[in-house]
Amino acid sequence: MADLVQYETASAEVRAVYDDIKRSRGVADVNNFWKALAVHPPTLKRTWESVKDVMGPGVLDPVTKEMLYLAVSVTNGCGYCIASHGAAARKAGMTEAMWGEVVAIIGMANETNKLAFALQVPIDPAFQASAPKS
Amino acid sequence: MADLVQYETASAEVRAVYDDIKRSRGVADVNNFWKALAVHPPTLKRTWESVKDVMGPGVLDPVTKEMLYLAVSVTNGCGYCIASHGAAARKAGMTEAMWGEVVAIIGMANETNKLAFALQVPIDPAFQASAPKS
Amino acid sequence: MADLVQYETASAEVRAVYDDIKRSRGVADVNNFWKALAVHPPTLKRTWESVKDVMGPGVLDPVTKEMLYLAVSVTNGCGYCIASHGAAARKAGMTEAMWGEVVAIIGMANETNKLAFALQVPIDPAFQASAPKS
Amino acid sequence: MADLVQYETASAEVRAVYDDIKRSRGVADVNNFWKALAVHPPTLKRTWESVKDVMGPGVLDPVTKEMLYLAVSVTNGCGYCIASHGAAARKAGMTEAMWGEVVAIIGMANETNKLAFALQVPIDPAFQASAPKS
Amino acid sequence: MADLVQYETASAEVRAVYDDIKRSRGVADVNNFWKALAVHPPTLKRTWESVKDVMGPGVLDPVTKEMLYLAVSVTNGCGYCIASHGAAARKAGMTEAMWGEVVAIIGMANETNKLAFALQVPIDPAFQASAPKS
Amino acid sequence: MADLVQYETASAEVRAVYDDIKRSRGVADVNNFWKALAVHPPTLKRTWESVKDVMGPGVLDPVTKEMLYLAVSVTNGCGYCIASHGAAARKAGMTEAMWGEVVAIIGMANETNKLAFALQVPIDPAFQASAPKS
Repeated sequence: MADLVQYETASAEVRAVYDDIKRSRGVADVNNFWKALAVHPPTLKRTWESVKDVMGPGVLDPVTKEMLYLAVSVTNGCGYCIASHGAAARKAGMTEAMWGEVVAIIGMANETNKLAFALQVPIDPAFQASAPKS
Repeated sequence: MADLVQYETASAEVRAVYDDIKRSRGVADVNNFWKALAVHPPTLKRTWESVKDVMGPGVLDPVTKEMLYLAVSVTNGCGYCIASHGAAARKAGMTEAMWGEVVAIIGMANETNKLAFALQVPIDPAFQASAPKS
Repeated sequence: MADLVQYETASAEVRAVYDDIKRSRGVADVNNFWKALAVHPPTLKRTWESVKDVMGPGVLDPVTKEMLYLAVSVTNGCGYCIASHGAAARKAGMTEAMWGEVVAIIGMANETNKLAFALQVPIDPAFQASAPKS
Repeated sequence: MADLVQYETASAEVRAVYDDIKRSRGVADVNNFWKALAVHPPTLKRTWESVKDVMGPGVLDPVTKEMLYLAVSVTNGCGYCIASHGAAARKAGMTEAMWGEVVAIIGMANETNKLAFALQVPIDPAFQASAPKS
Repeated sequence: MADLVQYETASAEVRAVYDDIKRSRGVADVNNFWKALAVHPPTLKRTWESVKDVMGPGVLDPVTKEMLYLAVSVTNGCGYCIASHGAAARKAGMTEAMWGEVVAIIGMANETNKLAFALQVPIDPAFQASAPKS
Repeated sequence: MADLVQYETASAEVRAVYDDIKRSRGVADVNNFWKALAVHPPTLKRTWESVKDVMGPGVLDPVTKEMLYLAVSVTNGCGYCIASHGAAARKAGMTEAMWGEVVAIIGMANETNKLAFALQVPIDPAFQASAPKS
């Protein structure tokens, strides 16, 4: 089980990251994920900055971003990530009906991915043609 | 490499599925995935009916559904599925800017999923509380 | 791409393993897998002895063993392994009808595995009770 | 952790699926997997019908089918699935000696799959030739 | 949950393996992994001999070997293996600063592996040229 | 297949990253991975900065870092990553004897990871005790 670095005993470097997370997300404390990552402060700082960048404003709306995060997390079987991004997705507006469809798509994609492996299906020329060109 | 069952030599049972795919999607021919699955007609029929159901109209829009399918397919490293659902996502409206963000999220989620495994992070009580209750 | 060690240029240590594979399987030459492993002779020898032991006579018949090998190989998306163990399974008696059912089960298991992850289903007390006791 | 929909509070649509599962399997109650899936009734119904179809009578016997399901579930690391399909396999006749061989094959296949990835082994022409032709 | 075969009730065949593990590693008792594997004595014996061989003296030092074992175990999400090989790596000299870098590399590699899948990057001719030749 | 952004047609933002990669690594051109990532310039920039940081000087030497990267890449079956990090590891000093041991460890770890899943081995209290405390 992870060591968790609490704010009270954290170094100034770690506290600065925690403060930025709390400010950016408007929360009173950071999640265990960040407290566990704090055992290696450079990884904590780099990961937070990357996540803040990737999950910040863009062309996709926040709930779509969180559902994509969930689809990866479920496929990898990461229990912590399913719990934390499930909570984030609900906060961003994912209803139970939306979650039901996300779950169905994840299941179906995992099934057909493995069917395509089993049969070693050759790629259709048309898919190559539809790819973007530089 | 897969055997591909062409329409001309397909059984009536297989042809009926191909006809439904072509009608539902407004395409002139079915993709290699279906032609490979046709070596086992019950799996062809069941898989098509499931995909048609899961990817059909619902609370999520078509482009979101295809991006979720892509997130799973990339995580599983299925080249065929990335090509076919990439084409489908573009047809449903995914721009290159959207694809760029999808790729970034997939990469980041795979990274943090494995960081959470490495540190065996315990689930925050708050995530449990935010889960839906029956 | 792998370097492949051919019999003609192999060391005596590698030749001894190749000879045992050819004798045990009644084949004229070893597969590329063994020729690639031969770049590290101790791994070649250990892997062959383990495979010979695991896939040799036991309570499960040869075709069941090869189908289990295929189920793992498809789930991992190993193209080489699907080709080589697909050939071995057919040689051991797997018909196309059997392969069709194997494919269907692999697809379904991958789907429900991920559904169980998505929903973080708690294990039923009855399953614990049915486990063997020492 | 999943919400579990109990029979008493289930909708008519969900009860109909539960009734069919209980009748088909001759059990007094359905497993947690189905109670968790019931949060999205269309996915519950579709998944049950697919599983009933795939795992029903065919050319492979029930114990072989369950062992294949187990091989996938272990490879994916799905604890719930290992418990539930382990129980089902034992009920269908899997002895501890058979389970021992299944475990050995799963381990060996996972090892050689990754060895084949490491060495990027090219597929032998002979394996292509042995594949079925349409 | 696994049945664990304790030394007191083990067969002579299993005891011989346990004795060799205890002697080789200078420990008073074997880990649960071996006690669980003992339900299938041939797999216990073969796995122990393979691990002893692979993790024994070679060109790589023990702490590097254990960190490589950890990198695989984290990528596969095996909680037991992360705990046992984390302990072994620390015993072999892995400091917390080293672990921090191992974690960072595992995370980054998992991210870029999936980015390479997403974009289906073609292999540079230079990488082919740098591969060893037989 | 990926679009590859060549230096000649790249934007100033992309060129700045390419220039930094070339300078940092002392190479005449960047690998296809970066040319493919350049379709989304923010992901190119962020990924390069993270990789430069993680793979730069630290407590682990460069060849150990590259071997860890390889262990993850092989486990994920990423052909591109095995080729590119295989070349980087050889450049950093990995001999064929070292690669042989890396391959053996990856294979063995993947096998025992799945054996531990199969048997759902409970974590030994001793491993918990050996974990670092904050």
